[in-house]
Amino acid sequence: MALDMSGHFLTILLAQTGPHTAPIDTSLNPTETLTADIAFWVGCGLLAATACIFGLGFRSAKREKWEEFYLNNFIITSWAACSYLAMALHQGELDLPGEQITGGTQPRHVYWARYADWVVTTPIILYDLTKLSGVRPVVQRAIIYSDIAMIISGFIAAVSPYGQRMVWYIVSCMFEVAIFVLLLGPVLKSARRQYSTVTKLFTQALVIFSVFFWLYPVVWILGNKGLGIYGSTIETILTLCLDITAKVFYGFYLTRDREILQRVGELTQVEG
Amino acid sequence: MALDMSGHFLTILLAQTGPHTAPIDTSLNPTETLTADIAFWVGCGLLAATACIFGLGFRSAKREKWEEFYLNNFIITSWAACSYLAMALHQGELDLPGEQITGGTQPRHVYWARYADWVVTTPIILYDLTKLSGVRPVVQRAIIYSDIAMIISGFIAAVSPYGQRMVWYIVSCMFEVAIFVLLLGPVLKSARRQYSTVTKLFTQALVIFSVFFWLYPVVWILGNKGLGIYGSTIETILTLCLDITAKVFYGFYLTRDREILQRVGELTQVEG
Amino acid sequence: MALDMSGHFLTILLAQTGPHTAPIDTSLNPTETLTADIAFWVGCGLLAATACIFGLGFRSAKREKWEEFYLNNFIITSWAACSYLAMALHQGELDLPGEQITGGTQPRHVYWARYADWVVTTPIILYDLTKLSGVRPVVQRAIIYSDIAMIISGFIAAVSPYGQRMVWYIVSCMFEVAIFVLLLGPVLKSARRQYSTVTKLFTQALVIFSVFFWLYPVVWILGNKGLGIYGSTIETILTLCLDITAKVFYGFYLTRDREILQRVGELTQVEG
Repeated sequence: MALDMSGHFLTILLAQTGPHTAPIDTSLNPTETLTADIAFWVGCGLLAATACIFGLGFRSAKREKWEEFYLNNFIITSWAACSYLAMALHQGELDLPGEQITGGTQPRHVYWARYADWVVTTPIILYDLTKLSGVRPVVQRAIIYSDIAMIISGFIAAVSPYGQRMVWYIVSCMFEVAIFVLLLGPVLKSARRQYSTVTKLFTQALVIFSVFFWLYPVVWILGNKGLGIYGSTIETILTLCLDITAKVFYGFYLTRDREILQRVGELTQVEG
Repeated sequence: MALDMSGHFLTILLAQTGPHTAPIDTSLNPTETLTADIAFWVGCGLLAATACIFGLGFRSAKREKWEEFYLNNFIITSWAACSYLAMALHQGELDLPGEQITGGTQPRHVYWARYADWVVTTPIILYDLTKLSGVRPVVQRAIIYSDIAMIISGFIAAVSPYGQRMVWYIVSCMFEVAIFVLLLGPVLKSARRQYSTVTKLFTQALVIFSVFFWLYPVVWILGNKGLGIYGSTIETILTLCLDITAKVFYGFYLTRDREILQRVGELTQVEG
Repeated sequence: MALDMSGHFLTILLAQTGPHTAPIDTSLNPTETLTADIAFWVGCGLLAATACIFGLGFRSAKREKWEEFYLNNFIITSWAACSYLAMALHQGELDLPGEQITGGTQPRHVYWARYADWVVTTPIILYDLTKLSGVRPVVQRAIIYSDIAMIISGFIAAVSPYGQRMVWYIVSCMFEVAIFVLLLGPVLKSARRQYSTVTKLFTQALVIFSVFFWLYPVVWILGNKGLGIYGSTIETILTLCLDITAKVFYGFYLTRDREILQRVGELTQVEG
């Protein structure tokens, strides 16, 4: 009996979820579910359309430096579109039992698809930003490691019960602080040695990035995983706005002037 | 009670699978199970033997360029051998409940070990192919990203119920189309500028690759996850044939003439 | 019913684990649990403190070569600290049902957080070691692949029932043998061509590394997953000692003389 146990360990889960879906569907009232669904489909559509634009841009780009930014933006938007598709199809969520602290028996929705999205897309966003600054690769790697560790500990926080959740939230924020120590230290210093238009683009990108990167944990902690000021639906809409800003507008903003992209890394290569 | 819940969330699964293994074993009749088992052990043995040959080839290779192809083939075959071992030991499968559309109450077998295999091996096969063509790294990365996204969405398709499955199948095929747009565009263009024997090897490899790469989704959609023309056992044997062709014969084919491998990238380095 | 099944497949697990935690807590007697908990908190504290030291060292390092070793040690210790934190919070463990062979009905503890730790940290330890030796990148990649395959098959071994467990243990050991074939072959040969102080540091590091790298599988097989000579608590303490030696002391040992790190790769660059 025990011999073929571990191989089938997911089987029973999948088989049992059928009859248990009823409490999930009643946990939000129909209007709220509908609003969240619309938000997911809107996000999926916008991101997929942007992915197509960047994909075509990648094929028509004439210089390798442009191609890289187009490719990165294509990866970011197409991956995020898949994540939104999973949530729109009701496949990207977990229902955890409700806790006293967040108001009783109502189950807590956790969208794991968001974390699967962020663990891929945020390192690429940071890679673009550090690429603009021309900082040395070892600092890039330090930032990307801290970012991945931040997202993974954020995911563990999201699925943990209240006590542990706050511990992991603090760990996650510590990694975010480490990212900003590096961004405002060696990365900014290196960016100031770049060609003037690149320095200007970097500074603007860093300001935009900093604002919305800190808004994510604020939206997270105010929602039903933390203080419980608003529910799952409002959190969904706020995160949608952040995602669209961070992925669609930010991507267009970075690639809007190809002449600037052409200059990336010019001065550092002379120094090198 | 809720406090130490998330830490143990897999525990219950593993504990409960014991009594539930009975319906799994009766879902296929004994002959079919035996046939599938033989196929898995044959695949595991062939792949492990090939991995040993490439491993020894790696140790005895005299040039770094040869070493890389041997290493890649060693990784492909040893990883795939582990995947076949998992399936032969009945550890690499999930049983999902049967659906009306595929003929009633009989559970659907999904071999997750295949996807764990493909997500590692297919990017390396594509890396070898693009390496031969001497295409610029940013295109290589675009192809490898599309390939990984294709396999992951294919896995989500396999474990999803019918409606969502077709959505994810289409997403997966779209990523496969993206791979071929790049292969027949910049990759083929770059390969034509290579040393003539390399161009010839690339063209042959691309034809072989294209044929079996499109056979995978055809085998998939005709099987019990799609149209249901044949059952799990025949799908297993067809996939075994594809895997052995794609990994064993293709690997030997690529490394058969070390003189050609020696020439890889020669012209592009002059251009570079 | 089946339509929204796969999306929620983890939900039921998480919901059901509450009432099942009782047998877990009684499976070890209170003293043993307390001892293991103390070991986890000690490990977490030591690793986090070391991570801070390496993090500050990274920020104050003046040369890029030093920075890389500091960064690697920061990643190793901060990632391992998170793994110990998960185990200290009782989140990093699975309870598998006991088997006849290991003494009846008592459940078997498997700390999956260890494998999540090792799959990231051991490749970096091996990267540092091969970096010191100045061996060519293709050999580095072969070693890192073998290491990751070794950890993953070790994890599959840990969660498998007895029969399959021994198969995967042998597979895992075969990958470890492959690592040592490469370390004692091309890596050692390349290290002998380095600057004399680097060669000396490499030789010492290799001896230390080899001793504790083979102690891990010995501790594993003597414990309750193999021969059952000692229980989960003693295994925890032994593994803690190995982890602290491998991560904290080894890290300080490698970075203790910055002058040596400065010389890494010097001779090979002349050859290259």
